[in-house]
Formats: sequence, structure tokens, C-alpha cells
Amino acid sequence: MLWPPARADADTGYDAWLRYAQLTPIERAKYNALPASVNVLGDSALLQTSQTELIRGVRGMLGRTLRSEQGPPTEDSILLTTIDRLRTVALSSQAPRSLEPGGYWIGHAAIHGHDCLIIAGAGAHGALYGTFDLLRRIALDQDVSRLRVTEQPSAPVRWVNQWDNLDGRIERGYGGRSIFFDNGSVRADLSRAGDYARLLASVGINGCVVNNVNATPKILSANFIPQLARIADAFRPWGVKLAISINLATPEALGQLDTFDPLDPNVISWWNQKVDEIYRQIPDFGGFLVKADSEGKPGPSRYGRTPADAANMLAAALKPHGGVLLYRAFVYNSHLDWHDLKADRAKAAYDIFHPLDGKFAGNVIIQIKNGPIDFQVREPASPLFGGLQKTNQAIELQITQEYTGQQRHLVFLVPMWKTTLDFDMHVDGRYTPVKDIVTGRSFHHPLGGFAGVSNVGLDLNWLGNPMALANLYGFGRLAWNPNLSSAAIVDEWTRLTFGNDADVVRTIDSMQLTSWRTYEDYTGPLGAGTLTDILGSHYGPGVGSAEHNGWGQWFRADHLGVGMDRTVATGTGFIGQYSPEVQKQYETLQATPDNLLLFFHHVPYTYKLHSGQTVIQYIYDSHYEGVDRVKQYVRDWKSLRGRVDEQRYAFVLGRLKYQVGHSIVWRDAVCTWFYRMSGIPDSRGRVDHYPDRTEAESMQLQGYAPVDVVPPEDASGGKAVVCNTAGQTCAARFQFERPAGWYELDVQYFDLNDGASTFKVFVGKQLVGEWIADDDLPNWRIGGDTSTRREIPGLALRSGDEIRIEGTPNGGEPAPFDYVSIHKTGP
Amino acid sequence: MLWPPARADADTGYDAWLRYAQLTPIERAKYNALPASVNVLGDSALLQTSQTELIRGVRGMLGRTLRSEQGPPTEDSILLTTIDRLRTVALSSQAPRSLEPGGYWIGHAAIHGHDCLIIAGAGAHGALYGTFDLLRRIALDQDVSRLRVTEQPSAPVRWVNQWDNLDGRIERGYGGRSIFFDNGSVRADLSRAGDYARLLASVGINGCVVNNVNATPKILSANFIPQLARIADAFRPWGVKLAISINLATPEALGQLDTFDPLDPNVISWWNQKVDEIYRQIPDFGGFLVKADSEGKPGPSRYGRTPADAANMLAAALKPHGGVLLYRAFVYNSHLDWHDLKADRAKAAYDIFHPLDGKFAGNVIIQIKNGPIDFQVREPASPLFGGLQKTNQAIELQITQEYTGQQRHLVFLVPMWKTTLDFDMHVDGRYTPVKDIVTGRSFHHPLGGFAGVSNVGLDLNWLGNPMALANLYGFGRLAWNPNLSSAAIVDEWTRLTFGNDADVVRTIDSMQLTSWRTYEDYTGPLGAGTLTDILGSHYGPGVGSAEHNGWGQWFRADHLGVGMDRTVATGTGFIGQYSPEVQKQYETLQATPDNLLLFFHHVPYTYKLHSGQTVIQYIYDSHYEGVDRVKQYVRDWKSLRGRVDEQRYAFVLGRLKYQVGHSIVWRDAVCTWFYRMSGIPDSRGRVDHYPDRTEAESMQLQGYAPVDVVPPEDASGGKAVVCNTAGQTCAARFQFERPAGWYELDVQYFDLNDGASTFKVFVGKQLVGEWIADDDLPNWRIGGDTSTRREIPGLALRSGDEIRIEGTPNGGEPAPFDYVSIHKTGP
Repeated sequence: MLWPPARADADTGYDAWLRYAQLTPIERAKYNALPASVNVLGDSALLQTSQTELIRGVRGMLGRTLRSEQGPPTEDSILLTTIDRLRTVALSSQAPRSLEPGGYWIGHAAIHGHDCLIIAGAGAHGALYGTFDLLRRIALDQDVSRLRVTEQPSAPVRWVNQWDNLDGRIERGYGGRSIFFDNGSVRADLSRAGDYARLLASVGINGCVVNNVNATPKILSANFIPQLARIADAFRPWGVKLAISINLATPEALGQLDTFDPLDPNVISWWNQKVDEIYRQIPDFGGFLVKADSEGKPGPSRYGRTPADAANMLAAALKPHGGVLLYRAFVYNSHLDWHDLKADRAKAAYDIFHPLDGKFAGNVIIQIKNGPIDFQVREPASPLFGGLQKTNQAIELQITQEYTGQQRHLVFLVPMWKTTLDFDMHVDGRYTPVKDIVTGRSFHHPLGGFAGVSNVGLDLNWLGNPMALANLYGFGRLAWNPNLSSAAIVDEWTRLTFGNDADVVRTIDSMQLTSWRTYEDYTGPLGAGTLTDILGSHYGPGVGSAEHNGWGQWFRADHLGVGMDRTVATGTGFIGQYSPEVQKQYETLQATPDNLLLFFHHVPYTYKLHSGQTVIQYIYDSHYEGVDRVKQYVRDWKSLRGRVDEQRYAFVLGRLKYQVGHSIVWRDAVCTWFYRMSGIPDSRGRVDHYPDRTEAESMQLQGYAPVDVVPPEDASGGKAVVCNTAGQTCAARFQFERPAGWYELDVQYFDLNDGASTFKVFVGKQLVGEWIADDDLPNWRIGGDTSTRREIPGLALRSGDEIRIEGTPNGGEPAPFDYVSIHKTGP
Repeated sequence: MLWPPARADADTGYDAWLRYAQLTPIERAKYNALPASVNVLGDSALLQTSQTELIRGVRGMLGRTLRSEQGPPTEDSILLTTIDRLRTVALSSQAPRSLEPGGYWIGHAAIHGHDCLIIAGAGAHGALYGTFDLLRRIALDQDVSRLRVTEQPSAPVRWVNQWDNLDGRIERGYGGRSIFFDNGSVRADLSRAGDYARLLASVGINGCVVNNVNATPKILSANFIPQLARIADAFRPWGVKLAISINLATPEALGQLDTFDPLDPNVISWWNQKVDEIYRQIPDFGGFLVKADSEGKPGPSRYGRTPADAANMLAAALKPHGGVLLYRAFVYNSHLDWHDLKADRAKAAYDIFHPLDGKFAGNVIIQIKNGPIDFQVREPASPLFGGLQKTNQAIELQITQEYTGQQRHLVFLVPMWKTTLDFDMHVDGRYTPVKDIVTGRSFHHPLGGFAGVSNVGLDLNWLGNPMALANLYGFGRLAWNPNLSSAAIVDEWTRLTFGNDADVVRTIDSMQLTSWRTYEDYTGPLGAGTLTDILGSHYGPGVGSAEHNGWGQWFRADHLGVGMDRTVATGTGFIGQYSPEVQKQYETLQATPDNLLLFFHHVPYTYKLHSGQTVIQYIYDSHYEGVDRVKQYVRDWKSLRGRVDEQRYAFVLGRLKYQVGHSIVWRDAVCTWFYRMSGIPDSRGRVDHYPDRTEAESMQLQGYAPVDVVPPEDASGGKAVVCNTAGQTCAARFQFERPAGWYELDVQYFDLNDGASTFKVFVGKQLVGEWIADDDLPNWRIGGDTSTRREIPGLALRSGDEIRIEGTPNGGEPAPFDYVSIHKTGP
């Protein structure tokens, strides 16, 4: 089927940034001179893919079907080829002599007297990437009539990781179930896998680890490898290599050996045979990703071996076939003693891997998370990037928003990633930004690059939110060229995703570019980490959960101060893992930037930031500012009504409105927690003082009963009300006693994931609002994960009005709610 | 459930002109001063309906929830009441003393010191209609701050007829199955009936005949009446009366009597009891509609009785309850002798009913189709309107587009209806336009009005096409006030349906206003009637089908001339049924307007019209012009991309593109037929000369075989090709031999309704188009009903290219096609 179906219907987000939406007549006219045929010169299947894609894209955007031709052009043509083949027909072309694998040249030349627009790859991959480049330029409404472009990727490894389990669930996935696996097997229909590979290829991604780093041995069983080969078949037309996560204990776990000691000859032989078995079925197999000795996973420590022992053993098996071995540096002790002020999880990766530098084989790559903890809303760059000069590295970035709002909150992560990529590690006193280290440039390694944990799923829009696709797009673009700016990347993405309307582009670009800072402002302040429930869903507020346990995500707050002292002088010494120049940036309070203050230092709440604010007042202010910015996003988005297709407009609007409610939950929880801990009131009188609110527990209750919420700061007043009389409707009422006028009434309620209660709101006898609590939030308990809000605008209220909330429980959900907030509005 | 669901999704058309879509912030500001409450003063349920509707509409458009209050206002308020009740609280208001039932006054007055916007009905119906009026003005972005309006309906009978069968099918319905009946019973879920009544009430329609005029006796069986009562319950909140079509033979057919002679005492008694039985269960039952002695239906002629005997007998039974009896004048002999040049079906209604004038009871209304034949694309006004001075009349208009494109072609019928309503019958030499006759004004009858055959169905958009709703809206508005202009009506409808964007409004208004003329131009010329297959679906071309049979829809074409001589002097004498003044307009060729020439006169093809063209050249030219105008509609509609929601944009675009293809089928069939009949070539060389076409039967066929199409003019060259080898794919190929360039290739194929063939189009080896023939056209035969087109634009063709059509049959559909047409375009 060469022919994509016409999409007359609203935009589901499935086509992401490859919509090839029809251009306006004026835009189309710009491409009237584009040749009418597209010739393939060369034998690779990727050239055929390129040709099909070019025809598809031009047809979508320009309404024309280019002629599909093979061989040298016999008329003016777009020529898809490789640089070597180009030289056989156009000796005089200005294509460069050599390019990195994946690189390409686009330019014009006469071939046999015909004017040709040439896309010539270093190999066939390059031609495919060049094809997507040309299509992107057309979608961006750029002139291509005198195009001359030379592009090559920053690094050879540009992979995504999927944390898919074989049963179809995805660990930390927020876009539906696995596109690869279901019920213990590879899916029969892999069309989504092929479409995913196309998306990946369009931004230059060339590999995909398809299963969870918490890998099951079963992935390597003899009957599973042919199934993996089917995924590889779906990837292959797009030049995406299949790779897998493996469990180091597999030789033992599959019952074939009684050890998995990486130095045991039987183990070595087992892996050699297994790798041979894989390559017989998947000749272009990419390699293995290993999570070992981490969070309970088996590893070489069991036998007193090092990560290098394990990695090199596997690398040796892969080497003859050209495969690579990615070994995750995410190894730490999750049973730290929190009483020990010197204990520091952040130190683990460097402590373990730095001593092994130089001991890893040439096809081993150490995969290092951007920060030393775990994908928090802000972390400094991992010192390990500077600690491995003789070792290939890849940076692991998380596209799926585990700690950053799980695709329910708008958070464009590229600016965050760039703070790490652009961070200068000052290795040996040289300019050594992380991007130059992981791409191999700083220490002259041929291997290395980028791993993005993407976790797309079966949702039509891949990630559960069309706006979140900007992160997948941005990851690919950064992996190709980490010097691209966040603004340039998001501007491309917005235009490709929503079209070139200037207001739309300006508005969405601005929302995306400010969104990370906004999220940080109402969640984790000053480098303290994302103050979420780290023991559960990693989603809603759970401030205290990081403290007083062995997981080491401490921010060490007490009644006097807050922050983790990681200095060399008085703290854990973590800062000592950096180069002397970087140490100078963090060791002193004076030098440390405000936004990482609490990551590196313990300070009193009254400590004054560089900005002049006290820490405690900054915490309050930033949380209120963050919420206000989310409210502004809603207004900004509403200004695009009618300029964005209704389906995505309505979906995103719903998400942004949800985000307003949940950002208030975050704000109140964090502010209340720090207010209770510090005893220092908000100088602006907002925290713990909500004149617009009526607490549910203070209303006149019929059937409803108050319950304590744990932790208490996750509900206003620490309490909610629940209706525990199954099959009955409960009510809560109170009297409105303010001047007549137009008001908005907001109900803060809890939407648990094991029921769908019905709520009704009455003013006197008049029903003014009604909804079913059927959102899909990640908890079945009343608390910060499930607290959400319903807005009822435009109510004419009069003093003396009775407001009544009726709740009808369903399933395990007792129609719980927290409070009602009423504020004045215009008519 | 007071609360309509939020419609975040694309517009399905379900809300029709009652979308209450959110106004822009600028538009909303205009209504800031609107009172915040709405008070009901009065006891009628219709006042409660009005209040709920006003709250719903204001909430949708302005985002505010008005306070719902009962009794006299205690603050500034919108007051919903009746004029009588208004006087008890505001003696000084400027509301008129008396209004026709259904009339209303909207104005401002102080009540107990509060500024009130008052909607006061003559009765509760009027308050409901006034409420819809106010909401309409807000949707139209009109200032309502100083509103003063007095409105009253033109006539008491403003009904729709539904031709629904009890099995759920709808005779001549093109919007899905019945919303009332399924499988012999009334549906369990009547929510659609209630929503329909709301649509009807919003334009002042106050009655609905729910079942087919070809009525089954079963509708009156004892166990059916309680089911009808449930429909009446769904209608009642909207002030819409339930009425039914009855079969005159019911007393006999239900097995209770051995006669249905309307003068038989047992029959009289049977009907009296039956009517009493109905009113016991449906106290506000509207009455009966009767089709008798027509197209095989039983009637009083069986017993030598007149229509008056039958009508009066039923009317007497209904009278004590306030019911009315509508008797259709559509009575004619369908076995006329076509050899008899004096025979004329058009004369039947007048011949039968005019002699009975004065013999009908006071609650009998004669329901007369607008023209003397049967809803053709153009007819003169029925002479019967002028022939019944002592009898109540209603005009029957057809909203469902039986002969006018069946909602697949865009035809706005209001301008056509207005040609009849505004036509002056010159009764007794006075100004007596049809609208004044049917509303009772001309002859001072209290009863009479409008019956519209609407035939909405279960399709979400009610009529099968959102654009067709303009006809239902227009019918209601005309019934309320037949003096409204077509332009005013369509402008309201467009704004209510698509919003107030000036370009959208201008474009759609213009398309609608020209659409009837456009359809006429490519179907039935000069008053000859719709040249469709009158023996079948009444849809595609079937020129000869009207001739040489007993149905009397003749246009009497031969090799020399065309047209039906209905003059008094030499023809059927039909013109003599009109008043002398009207006779003068039609009796002579000089006086007769071109557009009705062939209805009244037989002329040679070379006869020169007032316009100077010959008849035959006019036929050719008008058909080509009609097609060109449809092509322009597609361009016009495309200019609205992004300004109309995608769902309706895509749907209507699909219908308009279809219409282009089918208008070409019509054009070619009619032109070819007249060319063959007359032997006179098109002076502009277009007819029977298609240089861009390659006939399927002339291609190199593989598996495909040529077949004759009947009638031959319904296919180009009189032939198609079919693939009769089940389970196999057939092919037809030819060589393209024209200069290199960009071309559009159109495939004219047949989409039968008993299969879904697959078609593929190749240029050389390249697949350039692929589709499944799964449209739902009203025939299972190859011909004018099923001929349709696929456009493949933007092909770069080169001389020598092989074009190949592959067809794969499915079900009973042998992948048939007619020809390929290729024309040059820009890039």
C-alpha cells in the first residue's frame, strides 16, 4: 500500500510533525519550479523509502504526485543517491568528498543536461535524512530553489529506549500500552512499530531499544528472538536498528547455567552463542543495553566482578557482528543511611565508574543520565561525564515526563537538556561541554551519543499529549546537532505540527519555551528536586516522601533550614567529583547559582538569594508565579481557538485547564509544607490563607463525612469529605455571603482511578454544574496525585444563596472533594 | 438532565442552527448588560421550557448561567410570561393588547422598580418563540439592549410531515432511518424526537405528522396509540402537536367493519370512537392527514363518495377535540393514455377539488403541493390555490430533496418556494398571492398554512447533509412569515450554523442562493421537469423515463420539438384553470417566461427564447453553465478551509466534489439525449465531443468486458466495462500521447450499492490513486444514479506513459467504470 489514506478528519496527533498538511495556495506557488520526477540512483532499500516518502510528502503539501523513476535522470529531476554514486554521473557537483555516516548534501547540479535537485547521502541513511530535511523545509515554507546544505550527525549513537514490558505495560509510560508487546509476545500487527520508526528516522534517530531496562530473561529465549526479528523488519525500511535490554542473569535465569559470572567460560560461551543466534536472524541488530547492580537488578557484583568485566564480556560477543554494548551508569545503593550526613546517592556513579575508566572495550558505551540523581526537574550535570576520558559515553535523557508532569503538565524539556549538554565540565582546564564529551569530540572517541527514554505507546498521539511530541522531536534534533537552540527546535516543531500561522507559532513557541521553568516554579524550588511522592507514582506533590528513607533523594529540611550540603568542606564531598573549575562554581554559596542552591548547600530559610529574596519567600513566590503562568497558558491557548484544529485544540485546552488545578495543588502542598516546617509566614499573606475557599469539612454535610488526607498538605485544611454510603447520593451545603455579582465557582475534588463518581452543583434549586469524575489519574487514593478541579464560570450569585454539592459514589470512588473556591469575575 | 454535554469535539451538524456556539470576547462584551436572572411568570410548562432554553443558550454563547427564578422579578431580570400575566405586574408596558396565537412581544419595562427585558407571548407558545428570537439575535451578534419587537405567525398551521414507515424506513428520506419507528413499533429511545421538536419549535413549527402519507392501518390499532402518546410526550415540552397520516380503509383493514364508506353510520361511529380513544391518551393531538384515491391508496371513490364526504366525516370526529383534518389534493390518474394529447395530469387536482369548494367542513384543510405535478425542479403554482375560495388551504412544500438531488446536491429550496408563495393568482382580479391564500388572509379563513415534507432521520446531521438544514430552517421561517426574503433567511441560517465570519457568510449565502438555479440548469431545462428516472429513485438522469407511460410527467419531445402544449387554444386546456390574468401570462408564447416554456408549450428546437437563444442551444448552454457553477462552488468552499470546522468542511467538500462529477453525468445525459433526438449539434462543439476522454471500452482490456448501459446516454459512449471474474482483478490500459506537463486525471466509475470494489490507477508502474467504491448511491445498477467520479490531480504525465486502471470486484459490484478524462493543470 503506497498510498496513505486521506485524512479529512480532525487531527488526532498521529502524524505528529510529519503531517504534510496541504500548504496554502500562496505557499504552494513557491514550489512550482520543483522538478516533476524523483529518480533513485543506487540499490539500497533506504533509497526506495526515501523516494516513497518524498512522493508522499510532496503530494500532501503540494497536491502533486512526483514521477517515481529509477536510474540517471532523463529530465529535470530530484535525484536521491549516495555521494559515491553521484560522482559517477556528476563529476562536477559540489558535494563534499567525505561525510560522517548519516550525513548528506543537498544541492543543484546539471546531470546529462538536466537541472537536478540532488540529495546525496554519505550512505543511504544520509539520503533518507536529507529527504526528510527537504520535506521539512517545504513544510516550513522555505525557499528550496537554490538550496545548498551539508549536514552530518553529531554522533553515531542516536537511540531511543522504550521501557516496555513484554506483557504490554510500559514502565513510566504515559501514552498507552506497548506498540511492540502484548501478553508476553510481540504483537501480530506491527504497523505502529513501522510508523514509529518513520517518526524516528525523520529526526535522524537510528536505533531503538524496545524493552524495559528492567529486563526479563525471557527476551532472549529461543522462541522470542524470531519475534524480535519481526520488529527489526518493521524498523529496517527506516534505517532504525533494533536493540534490546538484557538481564545479566539470563544464562542462569533461563535455566541453562548455574551462574552468570561474566568471567565464567560457560557464561562467556553462552553469550557468544546467544549473540550469534540473534545475528543469524537479525543481521543488523544494534546491540544490548544493560542495567545491572541497580535497584535490585542482578549484576557483576554478585561475583565480585566490575561493571567493566560484565560489559566487556558482552561487548566481545557483539563485536564480530558490529554490535555495541550500552552499560547504564545508573548504579547506586538504595538503602543509604539517611542519618549519615556524608551519605550521598549523587556520588555513586562517579565512585563506581570513574575508577574503571580505560578498562572498557572499544564497543562499550557508558550510558549516563544527565544528572547525578534521577531525571529531577533540575539537576547539575553528572560529574561522571568528566570522569571518563578513555571511555565511550552516551547521555541518557528522559523524553517521557516521569518526574515532570507525565504528559499532563506542559513541560518542554529541550531547554533543560541543553543546560546539561552546554555545561562546560572544564576537564583538564579545557572547554569540554557535555555535548562534546558524549559525541566523542572532546576525547576523540568514535562511538557515543544520545539515548532518549521515549516510551511512546498505543495512544493515537503516541505520548498521551500532542504537545509532548515536541520532546521526542527535540531529542532527535539535539542528538543530530546539540548546538541547535531550544528556540529554533521548538519553532520547527510548532510549524510542522500546527502550521505556519504567525500567531499560532508565536503563542505555542512561547508556551513551550517557558514551560519547564513554570513547572519547576510550582514543584521543586532551587534545585531541591521534584518534591513528588518518590515512593509512588512520581507525579503529584509528596514533599516529605524524599526524606528519612534509604533512597537518597533527600533535601534535608528541618525547622531552621533546607538543602543538602554537598560541599567538599563540610558536606558529602560530591562537589569534589567535578573538575576544580566546576568545584569553584558550586563549593561556595556566593558562586552557586540560585537555581541549584539547595542541591549543593544547606541554608537557613532566611538565607538571602542572589536575587535578594529569602529562600522561604522565594519558595512561596515562585509557586504562586508558576500557577499564574499556567493560568496565562490557558488564556494564550484560548486565543488560538479556530486557528488550531478542534480536536487538538480541545484536548490541549483540557490538559491546560487540568494543569491549572493541579499546579494549585502543588503550590499549596509545597508552600504549606514549608510554612509548617519553617513557621515563617508568607510576607504577602497568601499561604494558608484562602479567603475564597469554603472547606468541604466545614460545610453542612448530609451523608458526607470528613477524612484526614495523608500527607495533610495535599488537601486544603488537611481534610476531604467522602460519601461512603454506596448507591446513595451525599450532599454538602453552605451559604454564600458576599455581594451580588458574577462569580466563578471551582470545586476541588479527587478523581480516583477505581471509580467514576458523579458530582452536581446547585445554587438554590438550580443545577449549575454536573460532571463525572472519570479522568485517569495515577492513584486510587485521595491525595496529591488525584486532586483536581472543576471550574464553573459565569454564575450570578447573591448573598444568602445556598450552594450545594451533591456527590454520587461509583466503584471504589466515594465522590470525595476538598473545597469550593468562589471568586469574582466580570459578566 | 438540565445540562447539555460540552461539545469539545468537531461539529457533527446535530445542533443545526441551535449551536449556541461561544461568541468571541468582543461579541460577548456587547451583552454584558443583559440581566443576570430569568424569571418565569405563569404556569405553563412551555414557560419552563423557555427558561431552560434561555439559560442553555446564554450559557453556550456568553459563558454565563442565568439565575432561574419563578414569579415577579426581585432584581433586574429577563421576564418570560404571557401578555395577560404581564399586565398584572406592568400595567404601563407597551406590549400590544392582542396578538395571534403564537405571537409575542419583546421589550423593556420597569417592574417593581427593576429594569426588565420582557418576552411576553400571546400564550406560552409565543413566549417560547420569543425566547428563540432573543437567542437568535444574540447568535447573530445583534444589539438587544433597546429591543422592541412584535411578531406573530402568518397562519395557525405550521406543520412538518414525515414520511416514516413503521418499519423504520422513510419514503424519500435521505438522512437515515426513522427517529420515531423501528421494526413496527415506536422506538424506546425518543430523545431524537424531543430534540427534533426543539429544532422545529425554534422556527415556530407547531405540528408534526409522524408517519408516511401512504399510511398503514396499523397506526390506529389499539396497542399503537399508547406508543404514539409517547411521541406526543416528547413533543409536548416544545409545543409541537403530534398528528398522523391515516388510511381511509382502516375500519375495514383492521377487520372491524366490512366497509369504509364514509357515509356508512358504522364507519362514522368507528371513527368517532377511534378519535375519542386517541384524545383520551393524547389530549393535545393535532389531527389527521389523508392521502386517498391517489397512487393506489383507497379512497371515497370506491363508494362513489367525494373527497368532501370523507374529509367531513373525519373532521366531524375531530372537531369536538379541536383537531383538524388535512386532505391532500395530490389525487390523479396514474394510468393516463400518453397518446391522448388532451390528457394532462396537471389538471387533476383542480378538476377534482374545485367543484367541491364550499363543501368542506370548517376544520378541514386541503393540502396542496406547490405545483400541479410533483415537486419538480420548477413548476408553475398549482391553479387549485385560486380555485378554492371557500375552503381552508395549506401549501405542501418538500424539504426533503426528492427530485432535487436528495441532499447530495446543494439545492436551497426557499427561492423556489417563494416563486410559488409570491405568485399572484389574480383571483377575481385582486392581488391574491399564494401566500395570502394559504394563510387565510385572501379569503378570511381562520385555518390554513404550511406543510413541509421534511423526512429527517437518524443521521447525526438530521437530513444527511448539514447544508440541507437550510431548507428545514427556511421552511419554518417562511411558514412564520412568508414575506421574508430568501437572502434574509439564508443569511440568518448561515450565521447560526457557521458563525459570523464575514467571508464564510458571504460565500455560503451566495452558494445557497444560486444553488437551485444551478441544479435546474444541469437537470431540467425550461420547465420540462426534472429529467430524472421517474420510475425509480428520482435521482440521476433518466430523460426518456417520463415519456410514453401513464404517469403523465411528459414533456413530449420528438425529433422536431419539445414541450407539453397546455394552452386552452390548442393544448390540454390546463391554463384555463387559472384566472384570466394568469392565463394571459401563459397562453401565448410571447408572454410565457422562458423558464416555464416547455411546461406550457410545444415548440421546435429552433424556437428562439426571449433571450435570443434557440431552445436546443439553451439546453446545451445551461447544462454546461450549471456544471461550471458547481465547479466554482468547490473553489468557493475550499476558500473556507480553516474557517469552518474540519468535520463539516470535509463532509461538505466531499459532497460538492461528488456533485461536480454527478452534474457532468447529468449534463452529458441530457445533452446527448436531446442531441440524438434533435440531431442539432451544439454550436459550441462540446456535446458528444470529449477530446480529454478515453472510453473504457476503447482501452486495452484484461479481464474487463464492455457492456451496454441503459439508457445509453447515462454513460459516455453508451458503454461501460465490467469485471465479472469474481475474486480477480481486471485491468484496462491505454497510452497517454500528449505533451509533458501537469495533469489531472479523472476516472468516471459506477458505485453500486451492493458491493465495494477497489480501484487502482497506475502511471507506468507507479500507483497514483487508489480508492474503494463504498459510497451509498440509490441503485444497484450501472447508470445515471451510480455514475460518479474520482479526481487525481497533480500528475506529471509524459507522452508514451501507460495509464492503467485496475478494478477488483466486490459483492455484486463488478468494478465498473465509464471513462478516463485527463486535462492539463498548473503544477
